[in-house]
Parts: sequence; C-alpha cells; structure tokens
Amino acid sequence: MSSALHASQVPGATPDDFYIPVLAVAGVGLIGGSFCAALRKAQRVGRIIGVGRNAQTLRQAQAFGLIDTYMSAAEAAHEADFILLATPVGAMHTLMRQMQPHLKPNVIITDGGSSKSDVVAAARAQLDDRINCFVPGHPIAGSDQSGPEAASANLFTGRTVILTPLPENAFDDIARVQWAWQACGARVCQMPHDVHDKVLASVSHLPHLLAIAYMYQVAKADDAQLRLNNAGPGFRDFTRIAGSSPEMWRDILLSNREAVLDELNTYRGVLDELNTMLVRGDATGLEAMLQLASEARRGWTLP
Amino acid sequence: MSSALHASQVPGATPDDFYIPVLAVAGVGLIGGSFCAALRKAQRVGRIIGVGRNAQTLRQAQAFGLIDTYMSAAEAAHEADFILLATPVGAMHTLMRQMQPHLKPNVIITDGGSSKSDVVAAARAQLDDRINCFVPGHPIAGSDQSGPEAASANLFTGRTVILTPLPENAFDDIARVQWAWQACGARVCQMPHDVHDKVLASVSHLPHLLAIAYMYQVAKADDAQLRLNNAGPGFRDFTRIAGSSPEMWRDILLSNREAVLDELNTYRGVLDELNTMLVRGDATGLEAMLQLASEARRGWTLP
Repeated sequence: MSSALHASQVPGATPDDFYIPVLAVAGVGLIGGSFCAALRKAQRVGRIIGVGRNAQTLRQAQAFGLIDTYMSAAEAAHEADFILLATPVGAMHTLMRQMQPHLKPNVIITDGGSSKSDVVAAARAQLDDRINCFVPGHPIAGSDQSGPEAASANLFTGRTVILTPLPENAFDDIARVQWAWQACGARVCQMPHDVHDKVLASVSHLPHLLAIAYMYQVAKADDAQLRLNNAGPGFRDFTRIAGSSPEMWRDILLSNREAVLDELNTYRGVLDELNTMLVRGDATGLEAMLQLASEARRGWTLP
Repeated sequence: MSSALHASQVPGATPDDFYIPVLAVAGVGLIGGSFCAALRKAQRVGRIIGVGRNAQTLRQAQAFGLIDTYMSAAEAAHEADFILLATPVGAMHTLMRQMQPHLKPNVIITDGGSSKSDVVAAARAQLDDRINCFVPGHPIAGSDQSGPEAASANLFTGRTVILTPLPENAFDDIARVQWAWQACGARVCQMPHDVHDKVLASVSHLPHLLAIAYMYQVAKADDAQLRLNNAGPGFRDFTRIAGSSPEMWRDILLSNREAVLDELNTYRGVLDELNTMLVRGDATGLEAMLQLASEARRGWTLP
C-alpha cells in the first residue's frame, strides 16, 4: 500500500491496494466518526476532512482524532477523493447541492442513509451530470448512541453494509465503496434501492416506530413514574431503540414513509387479531401465534 | 441460624434467623429453579421438594441439585413449610386444589405469577379457609430463557419482587415471604393486586404482546428470509422477549386481559396518531413525539 496510490485513478486497483488520499465525511457522529476511525485503524486513509453544521461537534471530532480538519461542504468537495455523507437523510439534499460544482473528476460519493429511494432522488436532482459518482449505501450498525463520542473503529466489525448501486455507476467505483467498507470490517451486499427500503422498513424502521409509540405512551401516563419504577430487563431491551436520535429518525421515517406505512398497516392488522383473541379468550389461537413468533425468534441469530 | 428453627413457628424470628426446613416448589423452571438455587446458596433452606407435570424436567432439576426429590402436589403439601408456585398462571388453580386438604398448619404459600388478580381469585376459590396462608408475589426477573437449565442462584440479585398481600395475611407471614426473596438478593415492595396488574400490563405484558405481533408479522411475510438476513442489533433487542415461552405468555395475557386490553387500546390510538402524521408528512409533530419518547428512555435506568 502506498500513500501516493489513489484507487479511483488506478483501474487495476485491488482491495489490498485500496487507499483514500483525502476523505471528506459530512456528519462526524456515530456512523461518520466510526468510518473515519475504522479507516484510520486499517491505514487506508490519508487526510480526513470533517463537514457539519455544528462547529462544536467538529472540534470534538478533531480533538478525538477522527478528523484532521474541517471546512465548508464546497471547500471539502474541492479536495476530497472520497466523500461519505453521514448526516440525517434530510440534510443530504443541501450538501449535494453545495458540493456538486466543486467535485473532483474521479471522486466517489457514498452515503450512510437508512432509506435509499429518497436519497437516490435527491442525488438525481442535485448531482446532475455527476450522478455516476454516487454509490448509495447503508451500514446496518445503528445504535441509540450518537455523536462523535460514540464513534468506534470497531462499530462495523462483522456488520452488514447494503449498497444499492445505480445503473450509472462504474463497476470499479462500486468495488471501491465495497473495499472501503470491507476495510472497516463490514460484509457488503447489494440490492435494488426499493427492495432495500421495503426490507429496512420491516426490520428497522417499523420496530423504531413501535418502540417510540410505546415509550411515548408510558411517558404520557398519569402514573408514568410508578410504571417506570417497576420496569425490568424486557422493557429495557424492547425500548432501547426508542432512545435514538429524534432528528435522525424523523428523517428516516418520513423519507421512507410509503414502505413504513405499508408495514405499519400490516402490523395494525395483527394487533386487531390479537385484540379479538384476547376479547374472546381464544387461548388456542393466541398460543398458535405466540408459538410461531417464539420459534421464529429463537431460530434467528444476528447475521 | 439453626436448622431446627422454622420461622413460621417462631413469632420473634428475624430476617437473619429466617430458615425454611422443607421447601416445595411447583414448577422448577427459570423462576422456581432459581429460587431453589438462591436459597441454597444463602443457606436458608433444608430440604427442597419439586412438583411438576413433567418427570423429565423434575429429574433434570434434581440432577442439577436444584431439588432433593420430587412428588405429587398433595404429598408435597403434606411436608412443606413454605410453598412457591412457579408454574404458568393457568396451572395454579389445580395445584392449589390438590394441595389444600394437605397443607400444614403454619405453612406459607406464595407464587411467582406475572398477573395477580387472577391468581388471587383462584386462591380464594381453592384455598378456602386457608386463604390467609397465601401471600401473592411477582419477581420481575423474566427472561426469554426457560427450564431448569436456565436457573441461576443470581437471577434475583438486585431485581424487584412485588408482593400484593391480602387483608387476611398475618404481618409475620408477609415478612417471611419478604425475607425469603431478600435472601435471594431481591428488593421487595408491596402494592395492591389491581395496581400491580395495571402497572405490569403497561411495562411488561404489552411489550411482550407487541414484540410477539411484530415477530409474527416478519415470520409470515413472503420474503421473511430476506428480512431476517438484514436485521441488526436494534431488531435483536426489540424482539428478544418474543422468544419467551408461548404457554407462559398465553396464560399471562389471558389472566390479565382486562388491563392488557386497556393498554393495547391506548397503544393503538398512538399508532393511529403516528399513521396520520406520516401520511400528512407532519415533521414537527413527529419530531415532538420522538423527542418525548427519546428523552423518557434516556432518562430511565433499570431499577
């Protein structure tokens, strides 16, 4: 590995050669900060530029050694060979618009957004004739923790990153985004962005919405304190994701709302069934549903 | 502490003197087996008799050293100074009926059922003039694990046990049940059984029902495998309680169904609100709900 080698300039680059001379990361929180830390640990990056709205967060990320410096989106685009957008999905539109006129010829842009159709639409609207540079992605490594203080070089170890490439993407560019994530310890897979959004609405966005609705109900109860005082380990695990960043999840739920509404609709149907079984005292029907759910959960392990 | 001392025969017994010469435990699974293991570790028990429907489970509990022997409910009642009913709630009715004619004069009976009004009604129906012996209880120490192999002397360490005493209970008998749980490392509190059932419907039974409904939905989807392959740590924690024992949870949900239906009804109202906000793209309303839920969750720690 040589620090002079830039993968995007070298057609025959291999995963072992992969190196990013100048990386720009917009949003240096859990995902963005961990990407910096992991690539540094793997010695696959030269200089790292932070971009963000909050100067204090950027100074903090710099103090932690996650980034070397920080500047505006336009200035960062002017210097970067590889750009990760790791802000809430709602902020990516503006970042792309600010960066577009300043992008280097061989730049690769990817993102960490939890919904993809919306981000792809934003990229098509903002990146214009540079759309081929953008390889959309989603690292499945969320946490209820956020901010640069939560960043870790090991966050992506063994985790899945889903890429949803565009027809315009060059094969080599897709490969380089894959190598970057692999260098972070992740396993990478690909699927179309609409399939991604449907699957993630099911296994991530709906559970967040359900945990949030539940925690809201408990917190709004007249006897909230009595309830919270008597909650146990089941409550702890079930509600953990309700503690996630409100801004981030507002954006995710809205940006993927078609798919989320579909899943929510199906879920409300299951609750209706359960309601009927409880009202009727239908022990057999209830046990059958519990049995199926329990077996499915016991048969599953974190990929 | 002397092995000849039986707290229920000694009016002035103190927590330090507390000792159970013969303990009978019906249901030697996670809760029952852990109660045996914890009292043994604390040297607060002499002989332990197991009672159950499944001979293999009883033999296993004996092999693990949780119980010394096992026999029928009637025979166990004939010998026991202290009885813990730790079966699913639906089986307690029958156990009480079988034990009632054989109970010793100073016996204390308690239970580990997750709903209390139903268990109290069963006790009133079955224990008749011995109702004063029954001090209802609920250790909040569930797990998705079950069976004697999941039992641990440390399960109750730092956990809450809620007692819901009856007007008929002698003060000393309530104290002795409290001491038994304290010897297991638990902290003990008291509340009326209807308050218990309302609180537990909120912080335990509803989350189980919601996690079960969710897991059922995922498992029944046409593309269930694709979904499960892309689920992450949030899914893991949110669904953990869906893997709990179907029989046990069927009984809990049915035995506490009035309170559970109340909570479920409120929850469906919150989902309706969320649905409306998503359909309208109401970012402000959505963020306000997320903010409240996130702050409530971040401000909570396991008691």
